[in-house]
Amino acid sequence: MSKRPKIIVIGAGFGGLQTALSLGGAPAEVWLVDRHAYHTFVPLLYQVATATLVPELIALPVQTLTRRHPNLRFVHAEVQAIDPRHQRVETNRGSLDYDYLVLATGSQLRLHTLPGAEDYALPLGTLDDAIQLRNHILGCFEQAAWESNPHKQQELLSFTIVGGGTTGVEMAGALVELMQGTLRRDYPHLDPRLIRVTLLHTGLTLLAEFPRHLGQYTLKRLRKMGVTVHLGTRVEAITATAVHLQEGTQIHTATVIWAAGVTPVVPISAPTLQRSPSQRLQVRPTLQLIDHPEIYAIGDVAEVQGRGQPLAGVAPVALQQGVATACNLRRQMAQRPLRRFRYLNKGRLAIIGGYAGIGQIGPIPLVGVIPWLMWLMVHWVYLPGYLSRLQVLLTWINAYLWGDRTVRQHLGASTSPQPDSTAVADASLPLLD
Amino acid sequence: MSKRPKIIVIGAGFGGLQTALSLGGAPAEVWLVDRHAYHTFVPLLYQVATATLVPELIALPVQTLTRRHPNLRFVHAEVQAIDPRHQRVETNRGSLDYDYLVLATGSQLRLHTLPGAEDYALPLGTLDDAIQLRNHILGCFEQAAWESNPHKQQELLSFTIVGGGTTGVEMAGALVELMQGTLRRDYPHLDPRLIRVTLLHTGLTLLAEFPRHLGQYTLKRLRKMGVTVHLGTRVEAITATAVHLQEGTQIHTATVIWAAGVTPVVPISAPTLQRSPSQRLQVRPTLQLIDHPEIYAIGDVAEVQGRGQPLAGVAPVALQQGVATACNLRRQMAQRPLRRFRYLNKGRLAIIGGYAGIGQIGPIPLVGVIPWLMWLMVHWVYLPGYLSRLQVLLTWINAYLWGDRTVRQHLGASTSPQPDSTAVADASLPLLD
Repeated sequence: MSKRPKIIVIGAGFGGLQTALSLGGAPAEVWLVDRHAYHTFVPLLYQVATATLVPELIALPVQTLTRRHPNLRFVHAEVQAIDPRHQRVETNRGSLDYDYLVLATGSQLRLHTLPGAEDYALPLGTLDDAIQLRNHILGCFEQAAWESNPHKQQELLSFTIVGGGTTGVEMAGALVELMQGTLRRDYPHLDPRLIRVTLLHTGLTLLAEFPRHLGQYTLKRLRKMGVTVHLGTRVEAITATAVHLQEGTQIHTATVIWAAGVTPVVPISAPTLQRSPSQRLQVRPTLQLIDHPEIYAIGDVAEVQGRGQPLAGVAPVALQQGVATACNLRRQMAQRPLRRFRYLNKGRLAIIGGYAGIGQIGPIPLVGVIPWLMWLMVHWVYLPGYLSRLQVLLTWINAYLWGDRTVRQHLGASTSPQPDSTAVADASLPLLD
Repeated sequence: MSKRPKIIVIGAGFGGLQTALSLGGAPAEVWLVDRHAYHTFVPLLYQVATATLVPELIALPVQTLTRRHPNLRFVHAEVQAIDPRHQRVETNRGSLDYDYLVLATGSQLRLHTLPGAEDYALPLGTLDDAIQLRNHILGCFEQAAWESNPHKQQELLSFTIVGGGTTGVEMAGALVELMQGTLRRDYPHLDPRLIRVTLLHTGLTLLAEFPRHLGQYTLKRLRKMGVTVHLGTRVEAITATAVHLQEGTQIHTATVIWAAGVTPVVPISAPTLQRSPSQRLQVRPTLQLIDHPEIYAIGDVAEVQGRGQPLAGVAPVALQQGVATACNLRRQMAQRPLRRFRYLNKGRLAIIGGYAGIGQIGPIPLVGVIPWLMWLMVHWVYLPGYLSRLQVLLTWINAYLWGDRTVRQHLGASTSPQPDSTAVADASLPLLD
């Protein structure tokens, strides 16, 4: 009896997980490797960061999905290197051999390009990031309540977001909602006029991937909600207490949220690998690496053309590529000809907050409450796990009806300590007045 | 205009929170102080520790409750000392003066009495404890899956609980359910016969506060579920890999869960304070300290008699004492005579697991599915926060219908790191076979 081929899929994000699940029942052993034991539903990260959703609701244990198929196995390990010559993946648990490999390693925030960013900017890329950011925001309010120096208090209540793409826009909207609603009620003794949310964007229109007038609508909505938006602004450096802009001014702020620029995570190195200008891996139209037909690359790590330009790093692209890769792997194992990947664009949506969103479905642009509701519905339907889906629905109904954000318990990320409560112990006590 | 008196309530557990809320609208400033910004619903901690409930669901932000009344204020601070002579509370945020003080500081696990317990036993007293315990349990399965030494694997899959009171019994039942259900499905390659849950109890009957035959029923149920129960066993020492019993034998186990013995947390010291043999504060029948009529003590920290013996440290006692204290404080401020506290015992329930519980309502003993359901219903009704209540209901329906425990994401407690995944990196890889 011949041994069944072994497929290793690296990364349990949208692309990798979809590949593995689409290979359920295939004549192969499929091992899905990820450093986290859960699949993160990235589009809802900002709702974790703004105390709306409990983190567990957007983090489905991978095993819950893989155990449905006997030929799938989840491996909780961190990939350290890939040796394409010997067809081997090195992990912190040991090395794994493969016959076929799928790289679905995604991207990470590009923080190192700016002085101070790695030390002082808070990223929003992973679930731990979101939890740490939430605790930091709650900690700023808490510290501000004990702070008697008005300059310092202003700094603690100033929140600055770098990047006017979808993440930056949705963070800005959700932050204002959190602060003007729940946190004002939690801290009735704080002066609400001190709260400041600033969005910095290098371009001249927000949400550049949408038509220009949708970006202008977004700008108007955010300003109406109370967000200070600076367009055409470049950040030069970040310190513990300020953002320095290229034009020479600075913004005093204890919180800088980084939502600008990602770079692909490429765990493989070989002399024959070809990369795009954005450092993504060049692939054939069948999603195989150009010199390695046994290796596929999908999602943010792969450069794939659609209508003459590279496809964006969004979930629908990765999901469709996951299905296509599984299909091609089945064909490759059966020695049948492979198929070209073609992306079907069903439209795009972005949420602003305050019952407002924008969208572009085919030729039709949408603004206002309809795309806002569509955004929530689409993400609700795609969220994995029916229990999470029910709980998210309840949370949203509560949040949007009463303006309440309930996740304010300061429970930790896997690594972060709580904000240091003794740091202000020697400050004077405004409460005692 | 005379200044309104200031009441400080220390501890936002059942007793302290109830006192503060019952003082809503009273002619006084009420400051509720706690080191956590949330109220922990302790009876459901074991469900957090066994991956059933998301921690946030049993941790309501205190401000959500206190902001309902303008005379209540929540102070997130850690009490360091109390000076009854100058009527002052010292915290890490500074000192607070009071006219009246309510001590509702609860109890903590008494770990220091046993060699090795503080280092190696995992307590289950706070929400952080529960999260750390859950992550430890999940980490043991994860490590066992990578372990090739059968002796070490057996040790990782052995879980030992010390203490046969309600916490020990409910942990034992819930642990077996978690392991035989969800974790067996997550790790299909582990031999389920290696999983071992052991309950150690010094007494000869479990749940000693109930009639004897209810304890015997509990013993039978636990054994039927697969728990190894040792009665009349005293633990002599705990090490990283074993529990040493007084009779000379030892149990090899990587996990020791401590559910035996609590001691009151008394942050006050004064020469005139009187303590009970169990170190609780002696109070008058009105719940005031004997020599300090301006200080009340309630809940686990106070020794209160009911029908000739000290009242147990359970939530109903603390809740009723909270109401009584608020009532007496209002009378004391109005210079009216105070009332004696009298506990109304509505009965007791304990949950075992597997659709089984026990109960004693007045003279009527109950066993089986009825008290199990009553336990869930009573705790569901008392859980604060209607959103949490709805989400807990959904979680329970899912958990008890499908035997699934969904909270397996390894997200951290505020302080604990994740189990070290590199610790077994040099172990051989059974997965590669």
